[in-house]
Amino acid sequence: MQYNPEDILPTISTDCVIFGLDQGKLKVLLTRRAIAPKKGGWALLGGFVLKHEDLETAARRTLKEISGMSDVYMEQVHSFGQVGRFPNRRVITVAYYALINYTLENLKPGPDSSDVRWFEINEVPELVFDHRYILDTTLAYLQSRVRTEPIGFELLPAKFTLTQLQGLYEAVLGTNFDTRNFRKKLLKMNLLIPLEESQTGVAHRAARLYSFNNDIYQKLKAKGFSFEL
Amino acid sequence: MQYNPEDILPTISTDCVIFGLDQGKLKVLLTRRAIAPKKGGWALLGGFVLKHEDLETAARRTLKEISGMSDVYMEQVHSFGQVGRFPNRRVITVAYYALINYTLENLKPGPDSSDVRWFEINEVPELVFDHRYILDTTLAYLQSRVRTEPIGFELLPAKFTLTQLQGLYEAVLGTNFDTRNFRKKLLKMNLLIPLEESQTGVAHRAARLYSFNNDIYQKLKAKGFSFEL
Repeated sequence: MQYNPEDILPTISTDCVIFGLDQGKLKVLLTRRAIAPKKGGWALLGGFVLKHEDLETAARRTLKEISGMSDVYMEQVHSFGQVGRFPNRRVITVAYYALINYTLENLKPGPDSSDVRWFEINEVPELVFDHRYILDTTLAYLQSRVRTEPIGFELLPAKFTLTQLQGLYEAVLGTNFDTRNFRKKLLKMNLLIPLEESQTGVAHRAARLYSFNNDIYQKLKAKGFSFEL
Repeated sequence: MQYNPEDILPTISTDCVIFGLDQGKLKVLLTRRAIAPKKGGWALLGGFVLKHEDLETAARRTLKEISGMSDVYMEQVHSFGQVGRFPNRRVITVAYYALINYTLENLKPGPDSSDVRWFEINEVPELVFDHRYILDTTLAYLQSRVRTEPIGFELLPAKFTLTQLQGLYEAVLGTNFDTRNFRKKLLKMNLLIPLEESQTGVAHRAARLYSFNNDIYQKLKAKGFSFEL
């Protein structure tokens, strides 16, 4: 969708760091700029804020235009306002992150982009402006959040195996955990409800499925916890 | 100091929530507006960002103009950009908090203020714009931070007693702790170095003084901890 220049706040943008989990790999969604400055460069998903909309509304609009998704976990991380971070004029950008289910469906470049694509977190190409710094800051924030709040579980399906859950933590934190230790620590939180169901359609022995105890989840979200792995 | 309107970014401000500890009470520094809009109203310390300065530089300038202080702990919390939060024009404000030693010296109203004063956190007057919301959001952030990182210790002198430290936590969290339990949990972290010194000039039995183990402090700051009280 194209916007009227008069409806735009020229000094304020939002940028979204969109994380998804693809078979145990953490990925980030990037877009290729079709306009100057830095035409052709890879960038975080972002854009201006409209005069009539709140910051988070702008971030959600951007995400929806590109992914078609609207009901996702999204959180403001930090504002970046260094002099010179954007060429020619002063723009501060408010960074949000979102955790979405990895999908290749419905992705379409935003209004000023020529491409949109998932990249593994370790294979991110050169980014425009200060977007590498924004990505690094946001990833560090997410890594600290998953250790102190039960965030990140949004990346899992409603019913999941302990292997999937461990894979999520390993992907986000970029490390491997001892399986026995991981499960022991996790089960101690009473956060998981073991279901009377197992995986279906797998070649190996079907693992038990779990879901989250939403009461405990909400309490831990409010109170915080320390998940030392 | 007065600024040239041409040097100012009219759409971006910073607001500082300045916390101090006065005899076991958490206080916040507020200023009285001497200009429209909301002339005469109490406000957080804040103001515009200059075209040539970064966001945090602007926040530190404001703090310095009013308190004379420059070397303080300061952290960005959140940006507030709701439509209509500021009258007549769109301004987004980036909120920072600072922890400073409570002092009545060197306080002077900023360029557009008629007064500056410490208020106990429970006795804050009506605030202008969305400043009450900014204050509440920032206090909640601080409360969550002192449980997961060794932040807040900046409010103590270099050598302090365990009673002072407990008083800090009680003031920030607005609650009372069981002294024995508090000390046990705290000492387990190895964060404190017991000194071969005691308080001087007190009527009661002089308590032992402690200082922080800076190595452990830096590690906990990077790694985080959970301080369940």
